Amino acid sequence: MRIAIDAMGGDHAPDEMVRGALLYRASGGPAELVLVGREGEVRERLGAEAGGISIVDASEVVGMGEHPSAALRRRADTSIGVATQLVKDGKADGVVSAGNTGATMAAALLILGRVRGIDRPALCGMVPTTKQKPACLIDAGATMDATARNILDYARMASRFLERVHGLERPSVGLLNVGEEPEKGGRLQLEAFGLLSAASDLNFFGNVEGRDILRGTTDIVVTDGFTGNTVAKAMEGVQDVVSEGIKRDIFGGALGKLAALVAMPGIKRFRARMDYEPYVSAPLLGVAGVSVVTHGRARARMLKLAIDVAERAIASDLIGVIRAGASAVTA
Amino acid sequence: MRIAIDAMGGDHAPDEMVRGALLYRASGGPAELVLVGREGEVRERLGAEAGGISIVDASEVVGMGEHPSAALRRRADTSIGVATQLVKDGKADGVVSAGNTGATMAAALLILGRVRGIDRPALCGMVPTTKQKPACLIDAGATMDATARNILDYARMASRFLERVHGLERPSVGLLNVGEEPEKGGRLQLEAFGLLSAASDLNFFGNVEGRDILRGTTDIVVTDGFTGNTVAKAMEGVQDVVSEGIKRDIFGGALGKLAALVAMPGIKRFRARMDYEPYVSAPLLGVAGVSVVTHGRARARMLKLAIDVAERAIASDLIGVIRAGASAVTA
Repeated sequence: MRIAIDAMGGDHAPDEMVRGALLYRASGGPAELVLVGREGEVRERLGAEAGGISIVDASEVVGMGEHPSAALRRRADTSIGVATQLVKDGKADGVVSAGNTGATMAAALLILGRVRGIDRPALCGMVPTTKQKPACLIDAGATMDATARNILDYARMASRFLERVHGLERPSVGLLNVGEEPEKGGRLQLEAFGLLSAASDLNFFGNVEGRDILRGTTDIVVTDGFTGNTVAKAMEGVQDVVSEGIKRDIFGGALGKLAALVAMPGIKRFRARMDYEPYVSAPLLGVAGVSVVTHGRARARMLKLAIDVAERAIASDLIGVIRAGASAVTA
Repeated sequence: MRIAIDAMGGDHAPDEMVRGALLYRASGGPAELVLVGREGEVRERLGAEAGGISIVDASEVVGMGEHPSAALRRRADTSIGVATQLVKDGKADGVVSAGNTGATMAAALLILGRVRGIDRPALCGMVPTTKQKPACLIDAGATMDATARNILDYARMASRFLERVHGLERPSVGLLNVGEEPEKGGRLQLEAFGLLSAASDLNFFGNVEGRDILRGTTDIVVTDGFTGNTVAKAMEGVQDVVSEGIKRDIFGGALGKLAALVAMPGIKRFRARMDYEPYVSAPLLGVAGVSVVTHGRARARMLKLAIDVAERAIASDLIGVIRAGASAVTA
């Protein structure tokens, strides 16, 4: 098994990407790794200890703020483009990137294409929950103007992902809605509710509300990409505001510093309970190859865990399972 | 001026509703108040000191979990129904309720009807921001399947509300979207962006993202009711989870209690900065009468502030201004 790493993508690339690759190899993972990026920069950081890690040169990077598909079309030699092409050419079995998510998605769609029977790809946004397990919010923004049929596909793909990669049995699926009753929502939700209820290959729970996401009411929260993206960013926004407020108002100043010191064990406990680094990385679902997206803030540990996710997606033939599910339904 | 109060609606009714009415009168507010609810219960709490406050009997209440329009149709004598009818009959100039929001809205639509030229009503969800001023998230869930034209109406109505009731000059309007660029979003957002850009009676800022809501990037964040409701509940969910985590992990236990004691001034500072009780209440926009919704958790102070909002909406002829704006556009 061989996994291509976008060595130039992410806030801490290439340093932490190279360190993450070394961490994965040191952990005894079965996959060989291919670091894709500016060869000189990568080799310098890799040093001598490079067993099972090779380098493929790519001179360009898609920046975090760049327009993804425009950047990919303009420059043939981007690290994410070259890494994804390795998968297409059979020289790698999957790709992992902490870079511009839009670019990773655009590369996957342009180079790998979609799984037959899946009209629209989806992004699985993994969120921590108070139940000590993460939940998958899908679609977190890959596709605008989703249909009810797309939403059904998302629920299926996310179910297969959680089963295969994280070992969940019959993960539960909630449809994001404005209330719990089946008749809630607009036309899209009403139609999606009908399709989800009728799908025998899903463990459909029913409607869930925004506040259920972090509560972990269901393993999967399915919605259209516009709602999913907006909700995910709004939740991040609350977290940021509260963290800043705590830092400044509660733990700022002399008395606050004392309070912080006394509270530190509790702060660590709270952080540990909401830690979901092993789950934060997820493959783009619906594209015809394993392409794992991890957080732009990823450091070595998170990248290593993202490689684990790619490894398990490849080993469990996640793409084949999604393809079989889609054709069984469309047949 | 006379304002009807749903004395039976809300988690702390009727006690806190009666106390809120007394607080409003004690503050020297110009409006006479009509408490609508079970006469015996209300009179007992009102006591002797009832200058400028009268009671109208209504024997039923719509519960917080009840299906609103079904409850209203089934029972003629609900406090929210009777209070809203007082407005329709010209016996009150506005109504205030801390009860079931759906029931307040259903009563307003059934009894008062819509403003001519406004197809769909909208709920203004007031949220605190880090800029020490609140923002209006509209539509927070009144209407499903909104059109771009509805969204334009929401932006106009919220602008007039913030100008008239809170004295803002040219409040800024952001369209909730998945990115800042004008070409972002689905069909609905693209069409709404065009309409909002072209509206000369709006101070349109452009697209904003979920994380901008609490940042106070714009005074108004406009979106369809499905997205608005889902986002509002998801943000509340994060807040709940973080508060619980802080209570349990950080300030729980013996050491935590000490930390909490030392941190108390900061906690108060943080709470004060996010206090938005003067703004939390807002009229339903698009209905042909002043019908102010406040939080189900409202106690006396919040109810008093909600009466202030109703008073200013009536005094500034908010409904007339919205009507004039709608007919100027549709003419």
